[in-house]
Amino acid sequence: MSHQSRQDRLVELRRDLHRRPEPAWREFWTTARIVDEVERIGVDDLLVGPEVLDGEARMSVPDEAELDEWYEQARDAGAREDVLERMTGGYTGAIATLDRGEGPTIGLRVDIDGLPQPESTDGDHHPAAEGFRSVHDEAMHACGHDAHVTFGIGVLEAIKESDFEGTFKVFFQPAEEVVGGGKPMAESGHLDDVDYLLAVHVGLDHPTGEIVAGVDEFLAVSDFRAEFTGAPAHAGASPADGSNAIQAMATAIQNLYGISRHQDGDTRVNAGKVGGGTASNIIPEHAFIDGEVRGETTPLMEYMKERAWTVLESAAEMHDCEVEVTPEGEAPSAVSDDAIRGVVGRVASETPGVDSVLDSAGLGGSEDATFLMRRVQEHGGKAAYVCVGTDHPGGHHTATFDVDERSLEIGVDVLSDSILELAVEQP
Amino acid sequence: MSHQSRQDRLVELRRDLHRRPEPAWREFWTTARIVDEVERIGVDDLLVGPEVLDGEARMSVPDEAELDEWYEQARDAGAREDVLERMTGGYTGAIATLDRGEGPTIGLRVDIDGLPQPESTDGDHHPAAEGFRSVHDEAMHACGHDAHVTFGIGVLEAIKESDFEGTFKVFFQPAEEVVGGGKPMAESGHLDDVDYLLAVHVGLDHPTGEIVAGVDEFLAVSDFRAEFTGAPAHAGASPADGSNAIQAMATAIQNLYGISRHQDGDTRVNAGKVGGGTASNIIPEHAFIDGEVRGETTPLMEYMKERAWTVLESAAEMHDCEVEVTPEGEAPSAVSDDAIRGVVGRVASETPGVDSVLDSAGLGGSEDATFLMRRVQEHGGKAAYVCVGTDHPGGHHTATFDVDERSLEIGVDVLSDSILELAVEQP
Amino acid sequence: MSHQSRQDRLVELRRDLHRRPEPAWREFWTTARIVDEVERIGVDDLLVGPEVLDGEARMSVPDEAELDEWYEQARDAGAREDVLERMTGGYTGAIATLDRGEGPTIGLRVDIDGLPQPESTDGDHHPAAEGFRSVHDEAMHACGHDAHVTFGIGVLEAIKESDFEGTFKVFFQPAEEVVGGGKPMAESGHLDDVDYLLAVHVGLDHPTGEIVAGVDEFLAVSDFRAEFTGAPAHAGASPADGSNAIQAMATAIQNLYGISRHQDGDTRVNAGKVGGGTASNIIPEHAFIDGEVRGETTPLMEYMKERAWTVLESAAEMHDCEVEVTPEGEAPSAVSDDAIRGVVGRVASETPGVDSVLDSAGLGGSEDATFLMRRVQEHGGKAAYVCVGTDHPGGHHTATFDVDERSLEIGVDVLSDSILELAVEQP
Amino acid sequence: MSHQSRQDRLVELRRDLHRRPEPAWREFWTTARIVDEVERIGVDDLLVGPEVLDGEARMSVPDEAELDEWYEQARDAGAREDVLERMTGGYTGAIATLDRGEGPTIGLRVDIDGLPQPESTDGDHHPAAEGFRSVHDEAMHACGHDAHVTFGIGVLEAIKESDFEGTFKVFFQPAEEVVGGGKPMAESGHLDDVDYLLAVHVGLDHPTGEIVAGVDEFLAVSDFRAEFTGAPAHAGASPADGSNAIQAMATAIQNLYGISRHQDGDTRVNAGKVGGGTASNIIPEHAFIDGEVRGETTPLMEYMKERAWTVLESAAEMHDCEVEVTPEGEAPSAVSDDAIRGVVGRVASETPGVDSVLDSAGLGGSEDATFLMRRVQEHGGKAAYVCVGTDHPGGHHTATFDVDERSLEIGVDVLSDSILELAVEQP
Repeated sequence: MSHQSRQDRLVELRRDLHRRPEPAWREFWTTARIVDEVERIGVDDLLVGPEVLDGEARMSVPDEAELDEWYEQARDAGAREDVLERMTGGYTGAIATLDRGEGPTIGLRVDIDGLPQPESTDGDHHPAAEGFRSVHDEAMHACGHDAHVTFGIGVLEAIKESDFEGTFKVFFQPAEEVVGGGKPMAESGHLDDVDYLLAVHVGLDHPTGEIVAGVDEFLAVSDFRAEFTGAPAHAGASPADGSNAIQAMATAIQNLYGISRHQDGDTRVNAGKVGGGTASNIIPEHAFIDGEVRGETTPLMEYMKERAWTVLESAAEMHDCEVEVTPEGEAPSAVSDDAIRGVVGRVASETPGVDSVLDSAGLGGSEDATFLMRRVQEHGGKAAYVCVGTDHPGGHHTATFDVDERSLEIGVDVLSDSILELAVEQP
Repeated sequence: MSHQSRQDRLVELRRDLHRRPEPAWREFWTTARIVDEVERIGVDDLLVGPEVLDGEARMSVPDEAELDEWYEQARDAGAREDVLERMTGGYTGAIATLDRGEGPTIGLRVDIDGLPQPESTDGDHHPAAEGFRSVHDEAMHACGHDAHVTFGIGVLEAIKESDFEGTFKVFFQPAEEVVGGGKPMAESGHLDDVDYLLAVHVGLDHPTGEIVAGVDEFLAVSDFRAEFTGAPAHAGASPADGSNAIQAMATAIQNLYGISRHQDGDTRVNAGKVGGGTASNIIPEHAFIDGEVRGETTPLMEYMKERAWTVLESAAEMHDCEVEVTPEGEAPSAVSDDAIRGVVGRVASETPGVDSVLDSAGLGGSEDATFLMRRVQEHGGKAAYVCVGTDHPGGHHTATFDVDERSLEIGVDVLSDSILELAVEQP
Repeated sequence: MSHQSRQDRLVELRRDLHRRPEPAWREFWTTARIVDEVERIGVDDLLVGPEVLDGEARMSVPDEAELDEWYEQARDAGAREDVLERMTGGYTGAIATLDRGEGPTIGLRVDIDGLPQPESTDGDHHPAAEGFRSVHDEAMHACGHDAHVTFGIGVLEAIKESDFEGTFKVFFQPAEEVVGGGKPMAESGHLDDVDYLLAVHVGLDHPTGEIVAGVDEFLAVSDFRAEFTGAPAHAGASPADGSNAIQAMATAIQNLYGISRHQDGDTRVNAGKVGGGTASNIIPEHAFIDGEVRGETTPLMEYMKERAWTVLESAAEMHDCEVEVTPEGEAPSAVSDDAIRGVVGRVASETPGVDSVLDSAGLGGSEDATFLMRRVQEHGGKAAYVCVGTDHPGGHHTATFDVDERSLEIGVDVLSDSILELAVEQP
Repeated sequence: MSHQSRQDRLVELRRDLHRRPEPAWREFWTTARIVDEVERIGVDDLLVGPEVLDGEARMSVPDEAELDEWYEQARDAGAREDVLERMTGGYTGAIATLDRGEGPTIGLRVDIDGLPQPESTDGDHHPAAEGFRSVHDEAMHACGHDAHVTFGIGVLEAIKESDFEGTFKVFFQPAEEVVGGGKPMAESGHLDDVDYLLAVHVGLDHPTGEIVAGVDEFLAVSDFRAEFTGAPAHAGASPADGSNAIQAMATAIQNLYGISRHQDGDTRVNAGKVGGGTASNIIPEHAFIDGEVRGETTPLMEYMKERAWTVLESAAEMHDCEVEVTPEGEAPSAVSDDAIRGVVGRVASETPGVDSVLDSAGLGGSEDATFLMRRVQEHGGKAAYVCVGTDHPGGHHTATFDVDERSLEIGVDVLSDSILELAVEQP
């Protein structure tokens, strides 16, 4: 395969994926597309859906109506019926395995979901200009997971074509954005024999040509949904007969953001999505907050979580309402192992297109790849989180986020060469 | 027509209407049903849609997609195509006129819209038990407008069959619940020649058998929508790069409810419906409040409005956001004229089924019937707002609100006999 | 005594009192001055201090250091030592009784305390211009109680000089401004034999020459102090180790003002005085709110109180603090009896200087005279609250409040003539 | 001088100082005591008051009445009259200089002020048990500055008795706790010729026997006072006529704590002391916040400051109030130079009583020693901030803070030996 044609194919695949972003647990079309590619390449084992996840551990799964809607959209968009059937109930994601004899087991983890937000229609936004903007009004690949899937496929193909010896697994993980898919995949057991795990992310404010050999400073995160229930009443004729769920919610929001900073390190809190009430003239009976807390360490996240729970409960009580707080996704902190960091750094510095290699850098965000990394580390393996820089015009999670497609091939090269190197290293 | 059959027909009509509640400006099926009934009775003039409203004065009209959805539902439910066409763009409502020679012009105003809230499925809820619960998941006749339409039809039929001399108009007004339909109907000009106007409401915590001859203490009301716009950012990696629209919204809510009570009389404020944000891990860019303020007098409502606007603007500024505040419906205060009050009280005390007559009572809520009442009064006519008591298990605007159907015939009798009496009174 | 000289003496007395305002339970000099005047006039019984109050029922008594300071100031200003001694511990106030044979027992209640606020130094402020401005930096007669004491003395003198038959008592009540003195005086037993009680207030936005025969619409009131206790910490080095009492307090304030308005009538809430913390770099351990709630009726006040308590407790809990809420003064609502209202109205309309008589008017505020009125009414007597209009440049409780001294003689005349009239009425 | 006697004298001096803590700019007695000690030792130059400060740069100076009160207390406690006179107007602090021929100029900076908070009376609190608890109800040495002064005197004596060659200055800096004295002393010019500056702090959660050779991670800090002005009104009779300054303050507090955390590093915010209002029944006209913001870097502090200002202004505007925000003390961030760090570490590791030496540690708080350090560094010198560990039962700024007196002699030894070593080092 010529150089040009591989890059073209990577771009084409990434744009296809970009056009059809699917939020967490709704990656039906995406998974089917992955299956198509993996089968084209040819592997020894391909697991889909319930086989790759511990069902009990899934978090933040949407309701059935929502799943059905995306299921049908995937079917309408041409997803294979047999693959779809295996994903019934929102069991998305896949694991592809190459079994190539004696040697270490090496894993690559990529996440595959999009975000529930509209994409820019601006003429300066490359996907809009080039015609591969999201077909969904309310979904977008605003965090580069389209590039991640492309890395997964590209690296799988490269390893397949190499003289790699050992076992190679690509983990196509669903539901990262709701911090919901990492834990069930980690607990599926498929990580337990992995000697080296690479997870990868594109961008993160690193420019095209820059590689971070081992990202650190993952914020531990805990998502929650708080549902406030009060009592409705006519806002003109009998306001005092109501119990105002929105007033409870507003009090909670004000005080969530006011949780004390902590001397031991970074913390975060966000009431990211809220809603409530039925009409302007009814004292609102219901309200909700979809929120999250984070900490530089797991104990700091626990501190924020405990304070947040107290705020939510006291705010409800204050306004004579009930609140039900449901934990959604949660991810711990993690560290990249130096053993892998060294290999990736060395390989990267010799990869064409790479002009800057950082030994480490802080993420400053959260990632449920940490579940997979810790699983591997707990079983005696090593793990690292690699960043492939890319010039991105808008920030992550904004409407104008985009990936510089030159970074696709760079990423595939750095990752596959690192894997080949790790395979022959003496542990 | 036998007594029994009229009551049966009133109940049947009311249940039909109850089954298909349509929120403000979406009363397509309801208006078509009214047209059917009016044509069955036979009138001298029947106006629909744009003919009964000053289009410029309409407030709180939903967007086109929403209108289309209800338009289609009405068609699917069998609404007449020719009537539907006249209502394109959400021009619902009708005016039916009997022209019976010399005599005063007398009007009856009834409102026809439902509320955007789910109806109880409880077995104790009469409409659920009897099978005429709302067919729409998110709409309900929770304020008795189904009974109001029934009054309108019943009284029209009674007057038609009587020896009434003069002109009689029934105003089937849309969009009362969003305080959006009263003003455009008042400004249509069709009220300007009315000598006596009766508006009617069922219930209001008065039991079956009780009549209030003239309701007073209407709270002036002003609805608004506030849209906050900030800037999104990743809540973990770059929270300080965002401008948090939900935080601005929460600050506004807390302080809206904290607007000072006023020594000159009753005031109200409600943030009845709110929403915002996209996901728990994104600093929210957008948020909105659908709210209202009220005052015992129009100046008190204006005081609340001015304070509320200031709160909304300062809250946005505080969090580096923009806010756009759009006035939605607005209704003034009004008083019932003694001239009508006297007649209704006298008639009611002689009406079978009535065991209690109150000369006056306070509404404590708002009503855009006040626009019609004031229009008539400004043109030299008189107006009163009559309450027909009904035992209602749940409060107005709650999921278990229901009308005691015995009050249907009582209402028709009191109203039609009062109209006949007013027609022969020397002004 | 000539007309001119009486008016001069009333003015002189009022200015003396104005010069030495003493806040609640600190009216040592004022009570001594009253004793001097009463002894000059000559009465049959004069009770002071513990004799006129049920000590258990006293509310909002300041601490000993504060009492001592004012006690010493009174001594320095020439208060009689023997009178001072009877008031040890803040037992201020007096009851003067004329016993004139057979006839009804009639009472007049006047309150005697000043407010803890500075008086205007503006040249336009009459007391400043005329040299009788408060000698105390932080106290002022900003509600006209100097005029009330003057009424009490003037009426006592007028009744003494008249042919009145019966018993006449003047109740010089302390601590009205903290709603703390009415209850203990009511429970002293000295009201139980009163047939007719007049309470009086000057001003209330009624001009000089206007008399309100019976004021109504007293707001029931309940004062409280909330003390929040958290834990201190260094705000830079260990903020999360603290529990922030000021944050709890701020949350409470925001939500106190946000307690829902009530459909049954007027309510009020105020966080009138607050404080907390020690320095900008210490997470604050302590904070307090001196607040109040009111209601048009006693149940409405109770509604506000219950809601306020919940807000205070939840706010403390939310921020991991303790709160101790102490009830301070409390006063019920009350009504003026028509029997007295009629007499006062009739008398007033014939009194020189009176050009407007209102049968009734709303107070819109609170008053612990209601404790005395209700005590009399519960024992079968009648009571009314009379307002003597006066032009006042600034509002009550503002730095420029003042009394038009022409109203002093008008008040004395209306009150004493009404008492004489009531004495000869057949009950 | 025998070992025992020196330690005894250090303890005695420290306890004397502990007994008479004086808050910022009120260190009259403390400065006079320092002068006594310095004169006893004998130096070549001793500057006091205006000579050691740039008067223009002083921040957070209390009002004259407050200064006078402490001035008189100092006089009553026996402070020398001639020294007191030099400090009129709150010009506290001193600089003592030994001029010992050729050699580098070396400085030691110690701060001398106490905190405005009460000291524990608990029997377990060593100063209470041993009888050297603060004589002032509302002031305490809760941060160990009594030990700092003792270090200053002890080191001065040790250097005087040594064979030191060069110039040695001890900077007794006032007003550190309000971040108000560092800047004026830095700008006095007396630092400009310093080659090596040592600043010292006791404790900071390091135990007795531990030395930190160079503290880093100073939080930049900015203090402010915000004064809100509204309009008063009677809370019952005319609440809506007021503009509620306490409501504005509470809104500001809630939102100050809610300022977004920043991805670039640590930030802090505190509303440390607040107050407002006059009485529970008056809508409050005035309120204030004494607050602070901090940042791990100066730009982070500036971010917090800008956001805080916006919050304060919008909160005032929201409630129709004015706010005046006055900057109080402010201090930048700073770093300790490795050249000094190395010497101190080496010396410490050989000092008796030291069992742990840390090369560096983070402060996590703020310090206006940074002004002096940066001044020296800007003029080509080097500076470091040394921590002398001490077991302290309560945290800094708490009522049970205390110093383990064994650390007094350790500190004097480490500091004086380091100074002697620096004096002979080749720069």
